[in-house]
Parts: sequence; C-alpha cells; structure tokens
Amino acid sequence: MKQINASIITIGDELLIGQTIDTNSAFIAQELNKIGVWVKRRVAVGDSGDDIWQALDAESTISDIIIVTGGLGPTADDITKPLLCKYFGGKLVVNEEVVKHVKYLFEQVFRRPGPMLERNLKQAEVPDVCAVLHNARGTAPGMLFHKNGKVFISLPGVPHEMRGLIVNEVIPRLLQEFEMPSILHRTAFTSGQGESMIAEHIKDFESALPPYIKLAYLPGYGMVKLRLTATGDNKEELEKELDSQFGQLKKLIKAWLVTDTDEGLEVVLGKILKQKGRTMGTAESCTGGYIAHLITSVAGSSAYYNGSIVSYANEVKENILGVQHKTLESAGAVSEETVKQMVKGAIEKLNADYVVATSGIMGPDGGTADKPVGTVWIGAGNKESVIAKQFLFRFDRERNIQQTAHVALDFLRKFILTNS
Amino acid sequence: MKQINASIITIGDELLIGQTIDTNSAFIAQELNKIGVWVKRRVAVGDSGDDIWQALDAESTISDIIIVTGGLGPTADDITKPLLCKYFGGKLVVNEEVVKHVKYLFEQVFRRPGPMLERNLKQAEVPDVCAVLHNARGTAPGMLFHKNGKVFISLPGVPHEMRGLIVNEVIPRLLQEFEMPSILHRTAFTSGQGESMIAEHIKDFESALPPYIKLAYLPGYGMVKLRLTATGDNKEELEKELDSQFGQLKKLIKAWLVTDTDEGLEVVLGKILKQKGRTMGTAESCTGGYIAHLITSVAGSSAYYNGSIVSYANEVKENILGVQHKTLESAGAVSEETVKQMVKGAIEKLNADYVVATSGIMGPDGGTADKPVGTVWIGAGNKESVIAKQFLFRFDRERNIQQTAHVALDFLRKFILTNS
Repeated sequence: MKQINASIITIGDELLIGQTIDTNSAFIAQELNKIGVWVKRRVAVGDSGDDIWQALDAESTISDIIIVTGGLGPTADDITKPLLCKYFGGKLVVNEEVVKHVKYLFEQVFRRPGPMLERNLKQAEVPDVCAVLHNARGTAPGMLFHKNGKVFISLPGVPHEMRGLIVNEVIPRLLQEFEMPSILHRTAFTSGQGESMIAEHIKDFESALPPYIKLAYLPGYGMVKLRLTATGDNKEELEKELDSQFGQLKKLIKAWLVTDTDEGLEVVLGKILKQKGRTMGTAESCTGGYIAHLITSVAGSSAYYNGSIVSYANEVKENILGVQHKTLESAGAVSEETVKQMVKGAIEKLNADYVVATSGIMGPDGGTADKPVGTVWIGAGNKESVIAKQFLFRFDRERNIQQTAHVALDFLRKFILTNS
Repeated sequence: MKQINASIITIGDELLIGQTIDTNSAFIAQELNKIGVWVKRRVAVGDSGDDIWQALDAESTISDIIIVTGGLGPTADDITKPLLCKYFGGKLVVNEEVVKHVKYLFEQVFRRPGPMLERNLKQAEVPDVCAVLHNARGTAPGMLFHKNGKVFISLPGVPHEMRGLIVNEVIPRLLQEFEMPSILHRTAFTSGQGESMIAEHIKDFESALPPYIKLAYLPGYGMVKLRLTATGDNKEELEKELDSQFGQLKKLIKAWLVTDTDEGLEVVLGKILKQKGRTMGTAESCTGGYIAHLITSVAGSSAYYNGSIVSYANEVKENILGVQHKTLESAGAVSEETVKQMVKGAIEKLNADYVVATSGIMGPDGGTADKPVGTVWIGAGNKESVIAKQFLFRFDRERNIQQTAHVALDFLRKFILTNS
C-alpha cells in the first residue's frame, strides 16, 4: 500500500513574527497520524498571495493531501479565499447553507447587538469549485478542492473551529478518498535517568529493531519519552510485532518507567489516586498554581483533587497553612522546614490524603549566594510522614516553573507508591 | 536597503506526528524580527536525510539566512550533523573547546554519577567548515556555515539551549554580517468588541494607511489584538509615522482599549496594582489555579499577588473560604451567591485588597439543562463591594479554562478601575 503524505500550510504574519505559537499543526498532525497519513512537512507562510501560491505549488509536488489553515477571518488582512478561487479556477458564489448558519450563530449563539455586517455575510461566499465543510463552531466554512490528483483542504485558523472541522469533516472525507497504511506508536515515559544513559543501556535493543520500527527519544521536564513507531500494511501483524518489541523495551527500562501510555504525569497520578480511592491537594509557592492547573486540566480530576493553597505571600503560608513565623525567619521560605510545614498544613486544611508542596526561587531575580535562582524545595506527605528534597534548576522563569511542577508531580507519585 | 529574509527549519518526527508543539520557531522569529530580519517561511521536516537536504536547498533559494533547529542530541535518531558535514563539504573534527565544556557540564553542573559516555563526547565533533557557537546551557554546540552567499545556522532543539544560543551567539553575528532595514510593530489590545465590528469601525483609517504600514487583527480569548507593522530604511522617520498612525488608531478604539503595548492582561493588571500600591488574590474553582499561574508567571508578581485558594472541592469552599453550606445546597457551587461568598472569604483569608473568583462547568461532563457545560460565574470585589456576572463559553475543556481565566482577569481589571 502506498504511503499517503500530507503537508500542512499555516498562513499568517503573526506566525512569522513570533506573536502566535502554532498549536494547530500539532493537532492536525495527531489526527492525520491516527488514520495512517504521514505528515511530511509543515510550512508557515505570511499573508502574502505570492508566498501562499508558491507554497501550494511546492507542497503539492511532495504530498497527496495539503491542509491549509488560517486566512479566512472576516477582516481585511485575509487574502486567502480570493487566492484559492484563482488557484483552483473558480469564482466566488454565495452558499445559502452557510448564510443560514452565519445568521443562526449571530442571532442565537453570539447574540450580538445590532445588525449583522456585510463582512460577516461575506463568510458565506465560497469558490464554486469546492466542497463546503460545515463549521459548526464559527462563521468561516472549510473548503475542499481537488487539483492534479491532490486533495487541498482550507480551514479557518481559530483553534477550536479548526479542531471541530478536522474531526467532524476532514477525517471522514479523507477516509473515504484514500486507502491508508497503518502508522502505530507506543510511548514509554521514564524519569530519573538521562537520554544518553538510557540510549547506552538499550543500544543492542535499538540496533536489533526491524527497519519498519523506529525508536525516538523525546526529552523534556526531567523525563525522557521513548517512542516506537511502526509503519506497514497489515495492521494486526504490525500491532503484534510492535507490542512484542515494546514489551522488550519496557523490561529494559523498568527501573525508570513511569507509564507505558502517552499521557502526562498529571494523568498517571490521577489514575493511581482513583485506583486507591484517595484524594490529594497541593500547597504551592513558587509554582504559583501551575501544579493545580496541570491536575485540573484532566477531566474528572474533581474525583481525587481537593484543591490548592497558593501561598505566594509568606503571610498566607503562616495564616492558612500554619507555617511557623520563626521557621520563615530562621530557615526562610525556601527551606526543608517550610515545605514540610506547608505539606502538613495543607493536609489538614484541604482534608486531603496526600499533599505536595513547592517553595523556590524561579528568577530572574531573588537569588542569593546561598540560594541561587532555581533553588527549589519540594515536599510530599500524608498524615503519617512527610519527606522533602532540594533541587536546583537552571532555566528561565517559565521553564523553572514547568520543571518544578513536573518534578513535584513525580515526587508525589513516588511517595504514594512507597507510602500506601 | 534590501530586505533580509530568513527561513526557519525545524527537524524532528515529533513535530510531524504532533507530539511536540513548536515553540522554538516563535522565539526565533521574535528575536530576528527585533533586529529587522523578516522571517519568510517556517518549515518542519522529519528525521530524514533527504527531507532535510531538500529543505536546505529550497529555503536557501528564498532566504538569506537559514536557521535549523533540532537533530543535534546525543541519541541515535539524530542524523543532522553528518548530513550538514556532507552538505557543506567538510569533515567531522573534535573541537577541544567543546570537549572541555562538555566535561565541565558533566562534572560541575549535571553531576552525573559514573563516567561520561562516548556519545556525550561525540557532541564535541563538529564539521571543520563551520564556526562553532558556544552553547553555555548544554553539550551540543551551535554551528554557522556559509554557502553560495547564504548564512546557515544549526542549533540544538532543546528550547532553553536554543534560546541562549540565539541571544548570545546568533543575533550578534547576524548584526555583524548584514545591514538591516527596520521592522517596527505597535500592538493594541481590546476587549468587549468583536473583530468584525472593530474592522467596520476603523475601515476608513485602515484604507488610508500608507503602503508600508500594515494592519492585522489577532483574535483570542474574548480579546482582539490590533497590530500595526511598518517596514522601511529610516528607523526614526518610520517610528514617527508609525506612532502618529498608532495614536489615531488608539483614539478610534478608545472605548475597548485595554493596553497599547503587546502584553498580556496579567501584566496589565499587575501594573495597575503596583501603581495603586494594592494587592490581590484569587479564589478559583473551575479555573483550577490557572489564573494564579498566569499572574505568577510575571516576574515580580509577589509585590502585589498574595495567593490563591483553589477550592476544587465544595468542602474547601466551605472550610477555607467560608461559603455557606446552605448556599451550596440551594443555589449550587456554580451560582452568583457562591462566587460572591468566595470573593469575600478570600479577601479575608488572603488579606488582599481585591479578589476575583470563578466557579463553572468546564466540561466535557457535569452539565445540566439549567447549567450547561461552559456556564461560569465570575465574581470580583474589594472590602466595600462585590459584583458577579454569568458567562457561557462554548469550547472544549482546555479552551473554556483559558477563556474563563482571561475574562476573569479583565473583569477584575474593570472592577479595580471603577472601584478605587
């Protein structure tokens, strides 16, 4: 079976001046991958007719499917629709279904005061050579074109609109048009060992892999992800072979294995707590609510997560968490004693079975010779015992916060597994 | 003066299967933009020698500067360095400066147990036709090549390493090699009005703009950003003209203007509080700490931010925030009464001048006929008065949380400006 390749073209000056981070491409790539389409290239170009035209030409020599996002909003910097019309040799016509939908959105959903604008109704104009893809979440419809045996799909760049269109319109149509090979992944998540040591440890395994199974290393946040990717026609056989290889890999990295599915630590931790029927809470100083955010981004986390006391001010550490004034005076806010008292206070105040606490200096300022920027104390405990450990991270503020949060989740995970 | 164009090539299968979101490109684009380099294209390709080679060829016909990130780690899936060697016609040689640096990192910084591995030392091998760029934060050095009058720069993909290299090595060298035109931006942040209504309101202004000043709309989180971009040779004149146009624009959108600098609401709010010498806190249910995270991601926020009580469980709403049991029973956790009591409780417990509180149903489950998914109550207040408002967001869980947090920050901002 032929491999089906796709290119993703994102349009918008905001991508080229770095004002916007492109999250759309990752979502599209994931969804295409699931149905066996290999994304060969991703390209970002500005709001320039020539550049878009050139990208359409270039990508269609490489890929079977070209997905274009962006450039379809109601404002004047959007030049994409007229250009697509010209590129595919059609003319703009009003689509009555889209008119109805735009009117419905304005009257029933957005409930905007005043009359609808000409430019909003213009969203209903589409090239007469495309199939219209229904955008349930917004006014700009998706469009599907054929040219020289290639499929071109144009989608609005607003992430939640694009996502709805990909899942409900694009994927079903691609499955109709193409016969797909299988691309399968298995991902293992490790903590406590560096990328190069792991690579050294499993080098014989890696060199013995069949050519259709690839191993990749994805480091991040003190963890290393190992991903096996298999490509082939017979999905069942491929799955069997991949599972067998993945089983071997898991045995080799057993000492550092956190989970064998591609999910974050916050999901892993939630599963452990649900299985044990226990609850947790957090007491955050330097992570400022980021751990709470990671945990509550998981749907259903209210089953095991009670809450957090974000004690940014020392006063809050004292008044709510009951950290002793003299501890803050003598040992300081970033100390073993303080995080241990934070854990104890939060277990009581949040009525939680387990608590993890953080206190540190995230930068860029606030460091001292004794406690440089990046110094962090993490504590974890239950009603019976509390432990704490010091870490030193050497990144910028944003990354220090993220790294601390992930290391704290892993610290609590290990505490729960050894204290239950 | 000739416009200097750049292309950014990111390497890695993880980008093409959507496992990693590319934040590097946005950072590089911002930094290049500041010195007047226009990023013409961004391309992501997989760990495939042919695809990387082809991208180098294609981008160097378009751009003067080609920046490549990724593919330089110590593990076996990295094929970039040998390929660069071949592409630029050199051979790999050991660079003693890098050897020293790698040894220093392992012995003094990482403090890894055991001997250093062959594969770590291999990081010190570089093509003999490149200038080595010192990577203070990691083992893989950057490399700079010249070919056919174009500049090629290869950097590791680890974000904080790449960032250090761009700022300390790449930008100074590019400023030596090229004479740059100016690219200037002005960004205004609005809330309370949709993209198309704003566009309608300022259409005369937009059509009267000179050809070297472009207007762009960037919608997001219930806000619309308006960005003016000017390009030209004479920086001073350009600045004058741009400021004059931007002044006109700000007058036109005065009713919805939040800030005239490109900064988030969390930064705007912090500035207001610092100026007034006031403090704030948060009481978060449905946003689960995300507002606290946004606020504490700003360096120096401890000057005005006391903390948050993330009351995910109703028990925490009662025990710490003092929400009445009968209120939770009768009106429910997602109600005007509850968020108002959350505000009052948090003002007292956090000893804060202002507090914003959220309670809602973020989905995908938990909705009822009365209170569908996306229903949110937001409260804001000080010791004298508390207000609350209901919202309905229609996105997925992640986006509902983000939207609620941003709307809550704006709700508090408006409360402070009218109640101080």
